[in-house]
Amino acid sequence: MGLIVQKFGGTSVANAERIRAAAKRIVETYKAGNQVIVVVSARGQTTDELIELAYEITDKPSTREMDMLMSTGEQISIALVAMAIHALGYPAVSFTGGQVGIVTDSYHTKARIRNINAQRIKKELDNGTIVIVAGFQGIDANENITTLGRGGSDTTAVALAAIMKADRCDIFTDVDGIYTADPRKVPHARKLNTISYDEILELASLGAQVMHSRSIEFAKKYNVPLYVRSSFNDKEGTLICKEAKEMENIVVSGVAVSKDDAKITIRAVPDVPGQAAKIFHEIAKRNINVDMIIQNASIEGRADVTFTVPRSDLREALNVAEKIKKDLGAKEVLHDSKIAKLSVVGIGMRSHCGVAEKMFSVLADEKINIQMISTSEIKISCVIDEAHADRALRTVHTAFGLDKVEKEEVVKV
Amino acid sequence: MGLIVQKFGGTSVANAERIRAAAKRIVETYKAGNQVIVVVSARGQTTDELIELAYEITDKPSTREMDMLMSTGEQISIALVAMAIHALGYPAVSFTGGQVGIVTDSYHTKARIRNINAQRIKKELDNGTIVIVAGFQGIDANENITTLGRGGSDTTAVALAAIMKADRCDIFTDVDGIYTADPRKVPHARKLNTISYDEILELASLGAQVMHSRSIEFAKKYNVPLYVRSSFNDKEGTLICKEAKEMENIVVSGVAVSKDDAKITIRAVPDVPGQAAKIFHEIAKRNINVDMIIQNASIEGRADVTFTVPRSDLREALNVAEKIKKDLGAKEVLHDSKIAKLSVVGIGMRSHCGVAEKMFSVLADEKINIQMISTSEIKISCVIDEAHADRALRTVHTAFGLDKVEKEEVVKV
Repeated sequence: MGLIVQKFGGTSVANAERIRAAAKRIVETYKAGNQVIVVVSARGQTTDELIELAYEITDKPSTREMDMLMSTGEQISIALVAMAIHALGYPAVSFTGGQVGIVTDSYHTKARIRNINAQRIKKELDNGTIVIVAGFQGIDANENITTLGRGGSDTTAVALAAIMKADRCDIFTDVDGIYTADPRKVPHARKLNTISYDEILELASLGAQVMHSRSIEFAKKYNVPLYVRSSFNDKEGTLICKEAKEMENIVVSGVAVSKDDAKITIRAVPDVPGQAAKIFHEIAKRNINVDMIIQNASIEGRADVTFTVPRSDLREALNVAEKIKKDLGAKEVLHDSKIAKLSVVGIGMRSHCGVAEKMFSVLADEKINIQMISTSEIKISCVIDEAHADRALRTVHTAFGLDKVEKEEVVKV
Repeated sequence: MGLIVQKFGGTSVANAERIRAAAKRIVETYKAGNQVIVVVSARGQTTDELIELAYEITDKPSTREMDMLMSTGEQISIALVAMAIHALGYPAVSFTGGQVGIVTDSYHTKARIRNINAQRIKKELDNGTIVIVAGFQGIDANENITTLGRGGSDTTAVALAAIMKADRCDIFTDVDGIYTADPRKVPHARKLNTISYDEILELASLGAQVMHSRSIEFAKKYNVPLYVRSSFNDKEGTLICKEAKEMENIVVSGVAVSKDDAKITIRAVPDVPGQAAKIFHEIAKRNINVDMIIQNASIEGRADVTFTVPRSDLREALNVAEKIKKDLGAKEVLHDSKIAKLSVVGIGMRSHCGVAEKMFSVLADEKINIQMISTSEIKISCVIDEAHADRALRTVHTAFGLDKVEKEEVVKV
């Protein structure tokens, strides 16, 4: 007998039929002898409808009142899920975030959980009751309703799993699990049985948005095993857990491509100490996230500084760059938003050599020019021309042996 | 400067336009130098939609989960009303029933308020903030969400007005005020400027359902003046307050007809002491509300007992009556559901004679047979054939001088 947290996303409770299907899964887990805590998101389009109601009233709704409004979405879901479990003849009780003592800070619409008073949940579980908790929400120290922002229901589930020391946290969603690459772009992408927190964190930040990185960081911190699976079928999903010995046999776990960045070059910056600091200090002041940075070798006392920023921040970053250009006496500012970032991720890289070399040579064979490179312990990213992105993704995916192979789970480089 | 509670019903906040109109009224009251507490119902069809969601899942939803579900309706409204007030540039904050300490018993879907901890409201009012409270809801001692049942938002408003010692409680609704009779049936019905709690209580129970009698009883108990008016126009409404001297000049304040009752007669009941008690004990055990009772004079040691029950309970009451017939050795059970109850109400009756006589003679002139009569200090009710109900209503209304007369407010008998 164990304690399982099960989280159902918005599409998994979008209508009565799906709510009944979710209830069936919950009851199966309960009948298998487990204590079950269920975390539910707002049904399908509910959140969008509530936002629309607010914007019919005002174009600048207060964040406190938005949280008051938005939190009703999950409250509706939990009541319906509890009813569906009752209809199957099993005991269940629903709670809002506030009712189970999920206390957050007061940053409305993007609050962070401070602590959870799990007494009430514990009592109900000990009574043999299935506990349904509204995801995405909590209350602050003054009992104002808060919401946790993007990926908030995942965060609720992981936080509850951590505090209750759950054996596992199931994330029911509309995909079958985590793939070696986006299956829409790479038809031969393979579903992974397991992946480490660190790998999925690198993949998440690259656009493979199965779960928000905040909740994965949380799961990593408290070592909560996450099991990502589809609520629409019974296929095996992907277990996200801490690094295991056998994972190291797989050098590359996934390949991802993102087209969310733009590149800025400040040309011929006088090469005296402190110039780079000045540039990135000004950018950071605007809350713009710089990802990759390259400074080429100095020629005649001047160097080119190139960096990437989110495309949505390009205009503002260019304004800053133009201002800096004058201040530093640089020559000109160039930019390119038609770039893509291709990344390979895998904890096996730590103990295996040659991953970077292989990636570069595959791209060279394809005559794809590498504009920038950045590496971490378990990731290599290359900036390339956006036009070649999907071809590069597929070629690299194949080169690292990630394509689907029947009856063979572990593929080595 | 005073403290005003303003309650807006579902039709008054049904869409963005109406919410903005409500916000304007609230702000006007605030700008006039008042502290304002606003109580809001769920928007228009929201409650029905939520009920439908529940019944898509199960035909026997638990009452606790129904309350969890239903209470979201008001929560959506309060957030939107607060936003609309913000949009006009005034300070407002919304609260759920639980957040402002409206503590009820645990009878889900029909809970009763036990106490209100008004500290939070007081603090916000003292800060100059307009306080928006979700009607219809509270929490029980274990912080489960409860709802107050029919007329619940009115009850919330009156209870807050009582505990906060408000100067007035405005009830904004979809009618202009209280009329001498239902204007749909009596085109010449006149709007009353004032009416006493007792009179409206008698009228409410007779089908003039502007407010639920529970909240009027509450207002009477705590002497909260209620001002019923339309949220769609600026016409003067009707003030419901405790009896005033001048009210006694108006003998009859209103006439109402209800078609919700049915009549049962148990014929030839042996006339020994305790028989009536037996009959009504059995009926009461089934939670059936008996309204009027007549026992005619005994003939040959047997009497007929006639009583009225709600039509919706007729079938069950007849079953009980048949059983009693056997037990008592009575002759037969008759019934008639084609009856109507015509009532005239007015606190002036206490000091004026001849009201009953006048009512009876008007009906006699119209050749309408009176089947049963019941009277209270301020009410006379007659059961008549349903077919004559509306004609009787209009004739009696006219006979008591209640028809609309230009430039004349007080009409004496």
